Amino acid sequence: MSTKIKVAVAGASGVTGTSVVNALLATPEKFEVTALARPASVGKREYVELAERGVIITPVELCESDELVQALTGQDVVIECMTLNQLEQEKALVNASSKAGVGRYVPSFFGPCCPPRGVMLAREMKEEVLNHIKKLYLPYTAIDVGWWYQLSFPPLPSGRFKARFEYSTVEVVGDGNQPWAVTDNRDIGKYVAKIIADPRTLNKMVFCHNQIWSQNEALKLLEKMSGESIPRVYVTKEELESSISECEAEMAKSNQTDMLKLGMSQYKHLLGIRGDNTPEKAKYLGYLDARELYPEIEAIPLESYIQDMLDGKLKAPYS
Amino acid sequence: MSTKIKVAVAGASGVTGTSVVNALLATPEKFEVTALARPASVGKREYVELAERGVIITPVELCESDELVQALTGQDVVIECMTLNQLEQEKALVNASSKAGVGRYVPSFFGPCCPPRGVMLAREMKEEVLNHIKKLYLPYTAIDVGWWYQLSFPPLPSGRFKARFEYSTVEVVGDGNQPWAVTDNRDIGKYVAKIIADPRTLNKMVFCHNQIWSQNEALKLLEKMSGESIPRVYVTKEELESSISECEAEMAKSNQTDMLKLGMSQYKHLLGIRGDNTPEKAKYLGYLDARELYPEIEAIPLESYIQDMLDGKLKAPYS
Repeated sequence: MSTKIKVAVAGASGVTGTSVVNALLATPEKFEVTALARPASVGKREYVELAERGVIITPVELCESDELVQALTGQDVVIECMTLNQLEQEKALVNASSKAGVGRYVPSFFGPCCPPRGVMLAREMKEEVLNHIKKLYLPYTAIDVGWWYQLSFPPLPSGRFKARFEYSTVEVVGDGNQPWAVTDNRDIGKYVAKIIADPRTLNKMVFCHNQIWSQNEALKLLEKMSGESIPRVYVTKEELESSISECEAEMAKSNQTDMLKLGMSQYKHLLGIRGDNTPEKAKYLGYLDARELYPEIEAIPLESYIQDMLDGKLKAPYS
Repeated sequence: MSTKIKVAVAGASGVTGTSVVNALLATPEKFEVTALARPASVGKREYVELAERGVIITPVELCESDELVQALTGQDVVIECMTLNQLEQEKALVNASSKAGVGRYVPSFFGPCCPPRGVMLAREMKEEVLNHIKKLYLPYTAIDVGWWYQLSFPPLPSGRFKARFEYSTVEVVGDGNQPWAVTDNRDIGKYVAKIIADPRTLNKMVFCHNQIWSQNEALKLLEKMSGESIPRVYVTKEELESSISECEAEMAKSNQTDMLKLGMSQYKHLLGIRGDNTPEKAKYLGYLDARELYPEIEAIPLESYIQDMLDGKLKAPYS
């Protein structure tokens, strides 16, 4: 390993990728950052801006090829910030990282923690990638980050804040009293930058979170800070479970389903009903706790996030 | 927890169960041992003998019932030493242990270590039980023990030692030079007795092994100690892989296959070709190393096992 840690990022222009790259660029003496971009995308504004900020842009397709192995050779860390629609590309990246002798591979986890199977289809798909990594004995760190502040609130009646309903926990799950771990997605990179430079996290899962809030507490805080009254819409355990069962029945019949509907029902069920997404459960499940490892990280508290939101400093995610 | 650790064992009359019970009874001041036995089996010689040695025999069926929850209430540890033919009973035992508030559940792992999925069907089935445990957040310890001395040798030409071909690595896998971890099955209980009394191993996997040998080295030792020349029979990577593919194709067609053939081909492949079953790989996979945790354990070396075998002190396992 040279004096600088060489890090290649796939999906550098996405929400998580942007958070990661921003954090790595904040300490240029520590990291040399490469963005892996499809040759057809290198001309895009996002990549031109990254290049201007000092990121090396490597045009390469994420498929089984000598070019990909070549592109990864010499990288200390490969970080994958991709969606679950890109599983084939992920496996190609894993295989190439193994062949290139990459020192640490970070698969695209970055979600709430839960048991490997039987709770979330999304987690099962990630687990499949992780298992593939293990079969190759490729050094890895899997990082989960809880639920985002950015997907935690319904729109404000005044219109000051707009939510993307389909991706958010706009409804109150169950009675709204289940606490769960939340993170500001702008902070994800801060954790990642610490984790990938830390030998303690090699071949481990790590759980990151900024704070722990129940929906009732978080909504009360939002009402207090905004001065607006927010109507509550509830979704029950039974409604979520029947939605999950319907999607699963559909999948069993046709091998296809409405993945967004299934995914969001499972997210809400694990967050608000099962209560998997807490640091205690994460520890049971084998995760290291990033807050214990790095007490020096100044994580944005929910109150600051709400203030930024009310001040119009943030756009709704995926908007 | 009372001064004594209360341990209930399911499958106490089997090979692993016997090793575990023997070790627990060796320190009666430390453990109170209960054997869970089917009501139809409590009169069997094995259980009568266990009762005479101080084991509490609890007659109970391993199925979802209040009786099973009742039988487990107050137990600090439940150890399951059962075969993969009893998955339904295992899940009933897990559910009842969770309801009874058992402090630590030890599922029936006790095999070589390997990645959770995609290498061994047997391990995938065990992983399913472990995942069920995790979904319930039942405190657990999963213990793997490598490969047994007792299943490591072909029969001696003189007839002094007979092997059960169908369960053993009688053939030399690949070139015979891959080292792997082996354990005397009489020692399994020594490790288990340490592990279940140790807070460091709670909600962890632990890997136990006595020694590390390649087949070539172990066969040379056997030849030297016996004075007999042992003919080598080889099985290649390609033969094992085609046997595995055939079984998998059969399963895909009919949902049935020759499980013994599939299982033994996969065991040999992971031991001799993939080389998963080593302490280094175990550590990568997240296991604690029992030899590092308990350097005081006097594990039987392979040489002593061979001497016992040549002296006619051991019967072939499963005979």
